[in-house]
Parts: sequence; C-alpha cells; structure tokens
Amino acid sequence: MERDIFLNLSPLDHRYYASNEPLFNQLAEYFSENAYIRYELKVEAALVRVLAKRGLCSQAIAAEVSQACNEVEPEEVYLEEEKTKHNIRALVNCIQHRVSEAARPYVHFTTTSVDIMDSATALRFKEATEKVVLPKMLELEALLIAIARREKGTLQVGRTHGQHAVPITFGFAMAEYVSRLGSRIECVKQTADNLRGKISGAVGAYNASSLFFDDPMEFETEVLWELGLQPAIYSNQIVEPEYLTDYIHAILSAFGVLANLADDIRNLQRTEIGEVGEVFEATQVGSSTMPHKRNPWNFEHVKSMWKEFMPRMVTLYADQISEHQRDLTNSASGRFVPEIVVGFVAAVDRLTRVMKKLVVDESRMKRNFEMTKEMVIAEPLYILLASLGHPDAHEAVRKLTLKSQQTGKTLRELLVTQEELFPYWERLTPKQRGVLEHPEQYRGWAERKTEYLCDLWEKRLMI
Amino acid sequence: MERDIFLNLSPLDHRYYASNEPLFNQLAEYFSENAYIRYELKVEAALVRVLAKRGLCSQAIAAEVSQACNEVEPEEVYLEEEKTKHNIRALVNCIQHRVSEAARPYVHFTTTSVDIMDSATALRFKEATEKVVLPKMLELEALLIAIARREKGTLQVGRTHGQHAVPITFGFAMAEYVSRLGSRIECVKQTADNLRGKISGAVGAYNASSLFFDDPMEFETEVLWELGLQPAIYSNQIVEPEYLTDYIHAILSAFGVLANLADDIRNLQRTEIGEVGEVFEATQVGSSTMPHKRNPWNFEHVKSMWKEFMPRMVTLYADQISEHQRDLTNSASGRFVPEIVVGFVAAVDRLTRVMKKLVVDESRMKRNFEMTKEMVIAEPLYILLASLGHPDAHEAVRKLTLKSQQTGKTLRELLVTQEELFPYWERLTPKQRGVLEHPEQYRGWAERKTEYLCDLWEKRLMI
Amino acid sequence: MERDIFLNLSPLDHRYYASNEPLFNQLAEYFSENAYIRYELKVEAALVRVLAKRGLCSQAIAAEVSQACNEVEPEEVYLEEEKTKHNIRALVNCIQHRVSEAARPYVHFTTTSVDIMDSATALRFKEATEKVVLPKMLELEALLIAIARREKGTLQVGRTHGQHAVPITFGFAMAEYVSRLGSRIECVKQTADNLRGKISGAVGAYNASSLFFDDPMEFETEVLWELGLQPAIYSNQIVEPEYLTDYIHAILSAFGVLANLADDIRNLQRTEIGEVGEVFEATQVGSSTMPHKRNPWNFEHVKSMWKEFMPRMVTLYADQISEHQRDLTNSASGRFVPEIVVGFVAAVDRLTRVMKKLVVDESRMKRNFEMTKEMVIAEPLYILLASLGHPDAHEAVRKLTLKSQQTGKTLRELLVTQEELFPYWERLTPKQRGVLEHPEQYRGWAERKTEYLCDLWEKRLMI
Amino acid sequence: MERDIFLNLSPLDHRYYASNEPLFNQLAEYFSENAYIRYELKVEAALVRVLAKRGLCSQAIAAEVSQACNEVEPEEVYLEEEKTKHNIRALVNCIQHRVSEAARPYVHFTTTSVDIMDSATALRFKEATEKVVLPKMLELEALLIAIARREKGTLQVGRTHGQHAVPITFGFAMAEYVSRLGSRIECVKQTADNLRGKISGAVGAYNASSLFFDDPMEFETEVLWELGLQPAIYSNQIVEPEYLTDYIHAILSAFGVLANLADDIRNLQRTEIGEVGEVFEATQVGSSTMPHKRNPWNFEHVKSMWKEFMPRMVTLYADQISEHQRDLTNSASGRFVPEIVVGFVAAVDRLTRVMKKLVVDESRMKRNFEMTKEMVIAEPLYILLASLGHPDAHEAVRKLTLKSQQTGKTLRELLVTQEELFPYWERLTPKQRGVLEHPEQYRGWAERKTEYLCDLWEKRLMI
Repeated sequence: MERDIFLNLSPLDHRYYASNEPLFNQLAEYFSENAYIRYELKVEAALVRVLAKRGLCSQAIAAEVSQACNEVEPEEVYLEEEKTKHNIRALVNCIQHRVSEAARPYVHFTTTSVDIMDSATALRFKEATEKVVLPKMLELEALLIAIARREKGTLQVGRTHGQHAVPITFGFAMAEYVSRLGSRIECVKQTADNLRGKISGAVGAYNASSLFFDDPMEFETEVLWELGLQPAIYSNQIVEPEYLTDYIHAILSAFGVLANLADDIRNLQRTEIGEVGEVFEATQVGSSTMPHKRNPWNFEHVKSMWKEFMPRMVTLYADQISEHQRDLTNSASGRFVPEIVVGFVAAVDRLTRVMKKLVVDESRMKRNFEMTKEMVIAEPLYILLASLGHPDAHEAVRKLTLKSQQTGKTLRELLVTQEELFPYWERLTPKQRGVLEHPEQYRGWAERKTEYLCDLWEKRLMI
Repeated sequence: MERDIFLNLSPLDHRYYASNEPLFNQLAEYFSENAYIRYELKVEAALVRVLAKRGLCSQAIAAEVSQACNEVEPEEVYLEEEKTKHNIRALVNCIQHRVSEAARPYVHFTTTSVDIMDSATALRFKEATEKVVLPKMLELEALLIAIARREKGTLQVGRTHGQHAVPITFGFAMAEYVSRLGSRIECVKQTADNLRGKISGAVGAYNASSLFFDDPMEFETEVLWELGLQPAIYSNQIVEPEYLTDYIHAILSAFGVLANLADDIRNLQRTEIGEVGEVFEATQVGSSTMPHKRNPWNFEHVKSMWKEFMPRMVTLYADQISEHQRDLTNSASGRFVPEIVVGFVAAVDRLTRVMKKLVVDESRMKRNFEMTKEMVIAEPLYILLASLGHPDAHEAVRKLTLKSQQTGKTLRELLVTQEELFPYWERLTPKQRGVLEHPEQYRGWAERKTEYLCDLWEKRLMI
Repeated sequence: MERDIFLNLSPLDHRYYASNEPLFNQLAEYFSENAYIRYELKVEAALVRVLAKRGLCSQAIAAEVSQACNEVEPEEVYLEEEKTKHNIRALVNCIQHRVSEAARPYVHFTTTSVDIMDSATALRFKEATEKVVLPKMLELEALLIAIARREKGTLQVGRTHGQHAVPITFGFAMAEYVSRLGSRIECVKQTADNLRGKISGAVGAYNASSLFFDDPMEFETEVLWELGLQPAIYSNQIVEPEYLTDYIHAILSAFGVLANLADDIRNLQRTEIGEVGEVFEATQVGSSTMPHKRNPWNFEHVKSMWKEFMPRMVTLYADQISEHQRDLTNSASGRFVPEIVVGFVAAVDRLTRVMKKLVVDESRMKRNFEMTKEMVIAEPLYILLASLGHPDAHEAVRKLTLKSQQTGKTLRELLVTQEELFPYWERLTPKQRGVLEHPEQYRGWAERKTEYLCDLWEKRLMI
Repeated sequence: MERDIFLNLSPLDHRYYASNEPLFNQLAEYFSENAYIRYELKVEAALVRVLAKRGLCSQAIAAEVSQACNEVEPEEVYLEEEKTKHNIRALVNCIQHRVSEAARPYVHFTTTSVDIMDSATALRFKEATEKVVLPKMLELEALLIAIARREKGTLQVGRTHGQHAVPITFGFAMAEYVSRLGSRIECVKQTADNLRGKISGAVGAYNASSLFFDDPMEFETEVLWELGLQPAIYSNQIVEPEYLTDYIHAILSAFGVLANLADDIRNLQRTEIGEVGEVFEATQVGSSTMPHKRNPWNFEHVKSMWKEFMPRMVTLYADQISEHQRDLTNSASGRFVPEIVVGFVAAVDRLTRVMKKLVVDESRMKRNFEMTKEMVIAEPLYILLASLGHPDAHEAVRKLTLKSQQTGKTLRELLVTQEELFPYWERLTPKQRGVLEHPEQYRGWAERKTEYLCDLWEKRLMI
C-alpha cells in the first residue's frame, strides 16, 4: 500500500525520513511493520525446523514452510487480518494457504501468538542493536576519542555554574563524553544481548507443548537457539518485561549523554563565548530574516529529540504491569517502543555528522581564559597557604580576592606586598610558584587523564 | 514521494493507518507534513492580503501570491530545503519562484520563520479540534448519555477496592463518564479557542514591521484575524508556550477519562464478573490458540494508547523552557505534538465503536449483587441505629456482621433476635425497614442523579 | 511526637525547612498532617451544624461536636488509628469520646470517610492558594513588572539559539515573564476556585443520606457551603479527579515559567556575558576551594526544584484512574500532592528574594551588543531592499554578510560602494537610513510593548 | 532542632514514619540530613588518614581530625552555614574549630565540596543497599519462594485479558514474581556495587592535588579505598551521573514488579473472584460506614506508592545533564533521590508483611476454574487435531465452541458425535485423551517450572 510520505503523521515518517533516507531505510529493516512481520515469519520457520529435527514432521515439510515464510507479504497478512481480526492468526493463515495440506498442522504448532511476537521483537531489537545501534555509537565514540586526543593540550577555562573556574583542556572536556558514552555502549550491548524470547505457550506453562514433548523447556531452548536467542527465565503469555525495560533504559540514559554533549557545545557556540563552531555549507540559510546567523541548530535538535523520547521511559515502566498471565494493555504501547531506538540512532547520527565539522577556536579559548586568569590562582593559592600552615587560608584568599577586585591589582602583586602573606610565598617550591605565576599551567592532569581515558575506552570497546 | 506504508516506522503510519484509513486521512488534513506546509502557506497568503488592504502592495500582487500559495507542493519545498537547509526560506523561495518579480518582495514581508510556523500550528490545532476532535468527543458523549439513560434503573452493585459495597445502577456508573468527559470537552474547547499566533518578527519586538507600520501590533492582529486567530499576548521569536501546554493538558486529561472508562469496562468483562460484553463479529478470532476467548482487547487498546501518550506531557512541560528570545530545542519535539492528538482521537473513535456494541447482562448484574446483598444493609443499619441514638452503632454492626458470617444467618434475622437491638427495629419508619428488607432498594439517588447529569451535560454541551 | 528535624527524610522537612522556617511553618498550616486532620475536623463540624439547622439534632449538640472538633489532636487520632487501622474511623472515635452519648450518633452522620477527606483536601488547597500561593505569585509578578518598567529602555541584544539577533531592551525580555506568570496566576486562581468537595456517601449515590433527606443533593450543597466549597458535579466515593488535576497542571505550568526565567538569568550571569549579577552577602562563600566564585546558585536551585516536581504530573494523570466506584490506589500518592505546591511556593519565594537583589550591568549589555551591531542591520537591510523591489534581497544580503566577514568592512560601508545596491540606499527614508546607521535604534516596539504588558497585567490582576 | 512530626510536610516524615518507626529510623541512618552530614564527615576523615599515611601530616593530626569528625553535629553545621551560605565550607569550619591550628590546613586538603558530597552520597546509597534494601528484598524473595513451593500444585485457572484461559497452578503464578524480583535483586546489587566517588578537585583534573602528589589518581583511589568505594572512571566537578541513574533504574524497575504483584493479588481478592484474602486484625475497621468491607488496601497502597515514585525517574534522566564542568541544577533535585529508595523499601516491607498473612482459598480457585473448564480443552483439542493432520483445526474448534455455547453440550460430547471429528478422537493416545477428559490436568509444566525457578533463584541469590 503506497502513500505519499508527506501524508504521514509521524515526523519520523515524513520529515526525518525525507532528510535522511539511507539511515531510515536501514532502521526500517528492523522496525517497520514489514520488518516485524518478517521477523515473526522467521520465528515460525525456526519452529518448524526444530519440529523436523525432532522428527515430528519431515524435513520436506519444514522446507515447504520455510519457503512460505519467505514469501508471505505484509499486505497479504493485513488483508487476512480484516477477516480474522487477529494479526497472528492472519499470519498463520497466510502461511498455511501456501503449503500443502500435510504441512499445515505444523505451522504455529503448540505455540501462542505472543511466543511468535515476543521472540520476533527480542530478535529484531537485538539485531538492530548489533547491526545499526552499536556501530553508530562506536562511530561517534571513535570520533570523540579522536577529538579528545587532538585537543588534549588545548587550554580552556573550566566552568562551573557557568562561571570561570580553574583551567582544563578542551580534550579533557571531550574525554567526559568518551567515558560516559563508552559506559553507555557497554550498557546497550549488555542489555541487548540479554533480550530474550519464549516458546512456552498461552500462559507460559508449556501446556500444549508438554503434550508432545517430554522436555518442553528444552524444546523452547532449541527453537530460540535457531534464532540466536535465549529463553526468558520466566514467561507466562509474555516474556518477563524487564529485559526490554533494561534495554530501553540503556538507550535513554545514553540519549541523556548525547543531550549533555549537545548542550555543552551549543553553549560554547554562544556569540559571547564562541569557542567552537560548525562549518556551514555555502548555500545554507541560517534564519529566514537574519542571513548572518549561525545557529547551532543540529545540537539544539539533538536536545529536542531527547526531550521527545526521554519521557517515554514512563511507558516502559507502566508496561511492566500486566495482570495475571497477561493483559493486553502493553500491546499498542509496545508497538511504539521501536520509535525510541529510531529517535536515538537519528540523534547519534546527527551528532556524529556535526561533530565531524566541529571547528575549535583555540585563540578564542585562550582569550576567554585570560578574562579571569588572574583570579584563577585563588584556588591553588589558598591550598598552598593551607599546606604551609596558614591558619585560615580560605578567608585570607577571599579577602585578597575582594582587594584585587577593588584595586585592580593581581593576586600575585598583592601577595608579595602583604606582610602577613609574603613569608609563605618564600617557602613555595619553584614549581608551585610557577603555577601562581602562570595560571594556565594550573590544569593538573587534564592532559594525562584525557590520554588515560582514550586508551581505556579504546581497549574496553575494542575500537 | 511515495512509499509502502509498511515501511513506515510509526505505528500511526502503518498499523493504525491501515486499520482505519478514513479517520487517519481526516487527521492528516491537519497533522501531516503536507498539512503543515499548507497551513504555513495560508499564513503567508493572509500576510500579503493585509499588505494589499493597507496599500503596501496591489490587490493583484496579493492575488498572485495567494494563487502561488495554493500551488506550492511539499515535495517542491523539500527539494528546495536541501539547498537552503532552512524550511521556511525554502517555502518562501518556492512561492517567489511562482510570482512576478514585482510581487516577490512582499512574500514573507517583515516576518520571521516562526511567525509563519507558530501561527500555522495554532491554526491547524484549532481547526482540527473544531472539525475532528470535538465532534468525535461529542459523539462519544452522546453515546454515553444514551447508555446512562437507558441503564439508569439497571441494578448493579457498587464496588470500592474491588469489593462489593452498596448498590447503584449501571446508568449511574456510566454517568460518571458523562460528567467527566463533559468537563473535558469544555476544557478542550476552551484551550483550543485560546491557541494563538504571532506576527511580531524575529525577537517579538516588531523590529522589522515597525519600520513600515505605525501600529505593528494592529498589523499583527489584522493578519491573524484573517485566519481566525488572536495574537499571543506576548511573543518573542515564539508564541508563549502555555497556550499549547494548556491544550495538550486538556487532551491528555481527557485521555485519562477514557482510560478509566476502559479499565472499568474490561474489569466488568472478567470471566467471573461478566456484567458486560462486546458483540464479536462472526469471523473474528479471539486468540490464536484459544479460539473460545472473548478478549476485551479494544478496551485494553485504549488503556495502552493512554500509557503511550500520557507521559508525553513531560515533553510539553520541558518545552516551556526556551532560552532568551528562543532556542530551537523545542523544534523537533514540537513536531511530535500532533501525534498526541492523533492518538487521542483514535482512542475516542475506538471507544465509541466498541461502546456502541456494548451488551449489558442485567441478570448477571443482579446475580453478582445477590452474592453480598445480605451484607449490604450493614451500612444503612449502622446509620439508622446511630440516628436512633445507639451509642456505638458502628461497633454493634461490625459484631453483627462477624456473627452473620459465622452463623450464616442474615443481618435482619440476627437483628430482630438481638435483645439489645430489637427496640431500634421497632422505631424505624416503614420506608427505612423497607431498605433493610429489600437491600436492592438501597441505591439512593442513583437514578435521579443519572438523569440530572444527562440533562445537565446535554444542555451545557448543546448536544 | 517530637523529633529532631535532621532525622527527617524529605529535604522539605529538614534542609528547606531549616533554611526558611517562617515560610514552611506557614505552608504547614495547610499541608502538614496536623493541618489535614484539622481540616477534616472542620468538615465534620460543618456537617453537624447543618444537621442542626435542618432540625435533625439540637443546636446544643452541634455546639458540643464543634467544640470537640476544635480540641482533637493529631497524636490522639494516630493512637486511636493503631487500634482501628482506619484513619477516619479513628478521627470519628476521637470526636465521639469527647461528646455526650446523645451527640455521638450525629458525628459523621450518613457520610463516608472520603466525603470528609476529599472535602478537606479541596478546602486546604483552596485556602492555601488564597492565603499563600497567590500572594506569593503576585509579589513576584509585581516585582517583575517593576523591573520591566525600570529597564524598559535598557538596550540589550536579542538572542536566538544563543546567538546575537536584533536588539531589544532588557525590560522587554522581563516583560515576557510578566505576561507568562500573569497568565499562570489567572490559571492557578481559576483552578483553585474550582476545587470541589462531596457529601454523597460511600458510592456517591446518596444511599445513606437519602434515607433522611428528600433532597440529598441540596443537603450536600449546604454542608459544603458552610466551608465555602461547591459540590463536585459528579462523585462516586471520590470527587471527580480532574479538578485537582487541572489545579496541579496550573501549578506545574507556572513552575515551568519560573524555570525558564531562572535559566535566562543564570545564562546572563555567565562570565563571558555578565549582563546581570546578584548582590552577594559579605560573609557568603561561593565555593569551598574557589573563594572568588559568584555562583548563580539560587537560579540553579529554582531550575533544580522544577526538575524534581514537574515529572510528578505523571502521578496526577495516573491517579485519574480509579476502578469502578473507586479503588484506593490514589490514596498514598495523593498524600504527596501537597509537596508539589510546597516546592513551587518555595521556588517563587526564592526567586522573589533573589530577583530583588538583581543588579543589571547596563554597560556590559551595551558592550555585548556592540560585538555584533554591524551585523544586526542585515535583517532590516534585507527587508528594506525587498520593500523597494529588490528581486532577491535575502540572497543579496547573505552575500554582503559573507563579504563583510571576509573584508572586515561594515555592511553600510559595503552597501554604499556596491553598484547594484546603492540605488536602493538612495530611496530610503531618513528614518530607515537612521536604523541602518544606528543599529541600536532597531529595537522596534520593545519599549512600548513592555509598557503595554505591564499596564495590561496590572489591570487584569488588580496589582 | 525538635519539631512535632505532624507539622512535617512529607508523608514520609509524618504518616509513614508514624506508622512504622523502626523501619524509618533505620532508613534515617542513611538518608536523613543527619546521615548525610555524618557520611560527609567520614569522607573528610578518610582524606586526612591518607594524608597521614603518605606523610603529609602526622598520625596525630589525622587522629585529631577523625575525632573532630566524630563530634560535629548537624545543627552546628547549619548554624555555621547561615554565615557562610555554603554547606561544605560550614562543615569544614566546624571541623577546623575543633582541631589545633596545626591540623587545620589538612582538613579538606586539595578537595572541592563535591568530592566530599558525591563520595558521601555514593557511600550512603551503597551501605543502605547492603544493610537495608537488599536484606528487605531478599526477605520478600524468600517468602515468595516459600509461597510458590507451597502452592506449586494448587490448581488455578490461567487468565489472559481478565478472561479464563488454560489452567496453571497458583505456585506457578507466584513463581513469576520469584523470577522477576530475583532478577531485580541482582540488578540492584550490581548497580549499588558500582556507585562511585571522586577526589579529583574542582573541575576533575586534579588541579590542586597534582601540586602535591605525583600520582593524583592513585591518591584518589587510596582515599576512596578507605571508604570501600571505587573512583568514578571520569569526573569533572561531579561523578559521572550514570552510576546513580542506573541504580535508581534498578530500584524503580523493581518497584514495577511489586506493583504488578500487588495488582494481581488485589484482583484475586475481588468479591466475585475471592481466591486469596488477607487475615484482618480483630479491631481493624474496613471502612467508616461499611464495617463489613475487607479492603485489599495494603496492596492498593503499594500500587499507589509506585505511582508516586516511578515518574521520578524523569528527574534522574534530567539530572544527567550538567553544563560544562557542572552546573548546580542537579543539587536540590538530587537531595530528593533518597526518598525514592525510602518509598521502595517501605513498599517491600509492607508487601512482605501482608504476603505473610495471605490466605489462599483453594476451593474457590477450583470453583472458578470449573466455570469454564469445559471450554478450556479447546486449545489442546485444536492442537491435537492439527497434529493428527486436520487441515483446519483452528476453525473446526472455533465452530465446535460456538456449538457448545448454543447447545450447552461439552466439547467432548460434541466431539465424539461429530462424524468429521470422531476419527481423530480414536487416534489420540490415552494421555492425550486424559487431558481432554480431565481439563484440570492440562496444566503442562506449571509445577515443574515452579520448582525449577525456586531452585534457580535460591542458588543465584544464595538464599
């Protein structure tokens, strides 16, 4: 059934599809209705293969059903569903219509609809993660590592509360995201690997399959093994929901890391700060009436997508509740879960594209640092005074700071003229004096920690 | 750009579209990208009409631009956007390409992109509400009124905490939803009427328009008046977000009422309760392996859709925050807001369809009531004893209740044999004794309140 | 029962209480457990007063019960509850223990627990709103109006996407919050006025009261009238939840406005922007190791409180669902609702205190504006060119902008030397040329709109 | 500072504290302000111990500071904070006031406030988890295992969509929660073990500590090792937020499991179902006007607490975002996070208490099953027919079902009289016929899977 994409209702299916077809087509291989049905057919085929392995039906029948499963089309299933009002019964009918009378009984044998649907869902999330989500995340991670390494020595003022604090390097600031994204990659991978299926029948007690098999749990394991899945430790009509809940938490907590990075970069792009920029394409228009504008709109977009998808965790938590052996109130809502992954991957992809074009203005970083560099040494000064036994270093420095603001003199100038403080100055090591004289050196292990983190995550993620 | 709907990613654009094309096509007239662009073109056309009225350009130019606005196609705009990377600049270019050189300057004159977008958004939500949302809600309301009236005298046990309490009627239970949905209809209407536009320029201070008009606020009012909109009391680059926040609150709080109704009905459908049912179609399949099942799946679906959309209010609240004269972090998320209305209307429509088929099993209601009817009179008994001066009526009845459970005798039987209590029995009026003898009469004003509410809401909503 | 406040678990009861006792004590008059019980006692007293008015009991009995209701203490009720395991039964027992045997039957007469609790809750939210919430909001509103008026002419660059756009005034920026907070004050007031009670008995059908009154709905109205409340249009065991849902939406959407204001101010406090500041107290410490820091921590605090309380709307929406004539799953969650109002009022109070100390650095605002003032005229230039019939003004200005960036010449300099553009320059009115020559004049109606909004909201809110 | 608990604002500090003092006192050891300050003092003491180990100060000084850290009282810190307006500076002052002039410089040496606060927070969550959260969860788990084992053979009808499906056992239904709670216990343990601290200074680059140590990362590790903590892989001013985000996800997803169990049990308590009950205490009152009621209020309470706390995950996700080296917008909100754990533990405790009193009505379960037992065999019949080569078993059974409903005859009766179907009946094995003749045997591996799960989780959790 063809339709103009601009008649679609979800921005995922019109605007974002239109602007990034290759990515959205790739995601549709796992998350469209077409994909869902194909994955359900894979489960049905795996089931019959195991029946044949166990001798319940012939290999020929298994082959016949597999073939049918390759051929059934979504539109056909929907037409059938108009009659049955039941999606999996429709699917089964479509398979059965294509096979011999002898093969029909083995289609969907002993299973319930959700055996097929939940296993298909686990599989498509798992494969999408392996094939798209993780590669995309790793691409961004590798890029962040490259930026962090490249900028590990680029002086930048550290900022807390939007205020200048003590210096770091821009590479160190980026290493934050190397580390946080790295940990989220591990979390996404681990929770995706733990997505599980079920072949335990209508209420999970193997009621039907135990009529035919002495070891229905083994039978379940074999069918899922065909697909590369493990069985849920427990299932009733549905798989325990927590496997998926954990996976979406992994995705959304990773999304939070992207949003934080996006916020940091767009703040650094403020006109008054201007430490980073984005290469704009020649024909691009910044704003319809203000052609000179250079909007950080891609970073704003990532933040905005996070605002759209993050709250949906509430739906996942609400869907943990299913009465008795299951109610259906997680069915429609469950159908929207793939959108979360789609939104996340789109944001990873966008961030990667735009971070590749990130321009760092080293001189602006230096200039900004110099705005407050005289005040920066308040911290080391206080600590050095304290380490030399000054009884109230914090208060002494606070007063010195106020004096500096009033007089316009630097802390160092004041320091050497203060009778009370000069003796401490004399006792400092050359290195310690060096930091007071050259505040830009007061950046601690910014560079070494950056290297440490890049090495660590490259190794852990085998990048 | 045509695409197979089964390749779409949102269930709104594949599954729910496929199963209810007419409704989704109707909604697409307001909420698709196609619709959005058409509404933007309406705003651009209104702008030039007012320029002509004020004599800034000729009527011919206004007509020319209006004509162009009728012709521009979404696909064309998207192609142009690939060059400009800016959606409204693309739109403006598309209009300008279609008009004479003389007309071009008046396209988009003095406005900023968001003047067009925010006004278009207010308008399409407002018109969708008038044309689809409210009619659908009123249809459900009228149906609920009809059911409440029809069942106003149908005895049903009242239930609190899932336990039998004192009797009501099924009509009274439905009157709850007549009233709650009624109040939500008023709330949706009122907040939709209050959606507003803006023609105040890039930062809201009429910087550009005041170069040409002595009364830029009046100019804004005139343009929006052409569209049937009021201007936002305040705007910077964007309209004050609270108009839309309030509207979506109205929609989502109405969705909560639907979800509660759905929960009530599906609980009444439990095998052990069985007080209501749904007529199933002959060819419909209940469950793939349990052909005898009669699932309340439509009610479960409504609850599930509520779980999907309700949490999105968090996005609306987050989108209230926009830095300074605006940041763009509400842009992508704002594009998903129409989905909430779509999901809501789909649920209203489904609930209407299924409530029309609601079958009430009066005899089952009576039978359920009779399970506990002997205990029901505990409440009036306690109150009557109290009203006659019994010093500790509550405790006396509690003990009587326990005795009734132990002996199997009814409260009335025990009452007349209890030396301590019999004197009270003698002092009751015939009407009061009647209630103790016929517990099903202890339903108070269930019927009259039902009528009262049906009359009230018919009048308030002019149904 | 006394306890060290530092053993409390909620920051509302230790940290924020300790730092602002007067306010929190005031809020405790409505929102503590003590207050809840006192309000419940008010409802019980009103009930008996109406019984006496209607002649069911004597005025003496009503007086006796009223007296008892004044005397019952929370601790007493809790001790009784340990026996009854039921809070309202305990309350009723406590009243009954204090009155004569003749009066006892009239305590709690014909009502159910929730009649008392829901009416008490409506009343305490309503009175807290009148006595604390609205006065606090109006105090902030008046302050914002004063700031807006004071700064209506203070030049500030308008910012979109964190980038300099065209100029406004700081008063105009503040007028945003005058308007948005103003509309929220109206919304809070309206929804608080609409909080409602009920005296309709166990399942809302007046089962018990109709045994004694021919007009139980009138009886309900009379009891609530004593308290200054209206009855819910519909109630079963509980009041329709939407009255409270709407009220909390009003509170939380107002909280969003505070959060936006807080974000704006703390961004203006960034070291590189520095347009506003906060007077710090002499002994105050900015950071434990960086004594020179001046953190915008009060604004960050307001944002943080918003993040804490905003998501709780989800609880209100979830609590709209109550099975049949009610389940109790909204009981514990309902007890946390007052916290939302407390958190909001604390934020209003903090914002008021800190906005009073706001220092505006006019020269810094001017300096920041001058960073980009040459580029600012791109917008009016484009529009003026267009209005004079330039066929592609937008593109022309975009190219000019790039040239300006490359050559370092101003747009005006380039303009008069461009053969293609000079003819347009000559056709401009003096006023229009003025804006191009003095970009700071390109601030449109910033000042007039500020005045307009201050006047409007003063009148609407009768400040 | 003492205060009447009934003046507190949070139900955690009045109602729930009053009703379960021992538990809330235990939780206050980790989550009160008192506890927070004590944990901060532990971190300060650990810091000086390591300084002494490394020879920066004497052991005597370390002992002196440790002693002071044991003595400082919260009230004292708050008084000091009134002067400093900074909580950790106040804490440090309080320590310094108690030690010799020689010791003072080593207090808080090279650290920033958040080094102390974040490490203290990680530690108190970790210890609360070990000492309270996990023991409470394991107690409930052990109880669920005992119930599942006890009821493993108790016949119960399986229910999907609130409708009778095929039989299971009540033990199998409880095994669901054995498994889901088991997996959540592992998740809580794992994420709590991964909570981490930091001693990396104001912006995380060891700026200050590297002035004194050649190996500041090792120094950090040593200080945290004293407390039993690991350092965050990355920190700027704050620890990477994801450690805590993951932990609260573990808690809240466990809360969802409790809520589901609570829903299941309260549904089984419905008057019409009545399969389980709760022993009520003799003096307890069910409802103020309906003394005979037996409310499942404890289960409703658990559900209600879940509704209160679950949405707060949104706050945790929002708090993942902190600008640059940190902003303070996660400070106030972070102070509320312990409430989530408190609410969860209270719910675990309540559920444990009430599940201990759970009464299973075996005969009622049997009676309910018998309502539909004739229809139950539809599923095995369909599958058996299919396995014997019936070409359209599903449809055949569906028709038989309708016929059974119309004629009142059982499926088996109809089966043996249907010419078309009788041949299949003859080909069934005795065991298969047995299931059709005794539907209660059609419970598959309910009992064995129950045992399997109880064994598995006992072993994995070492119960």
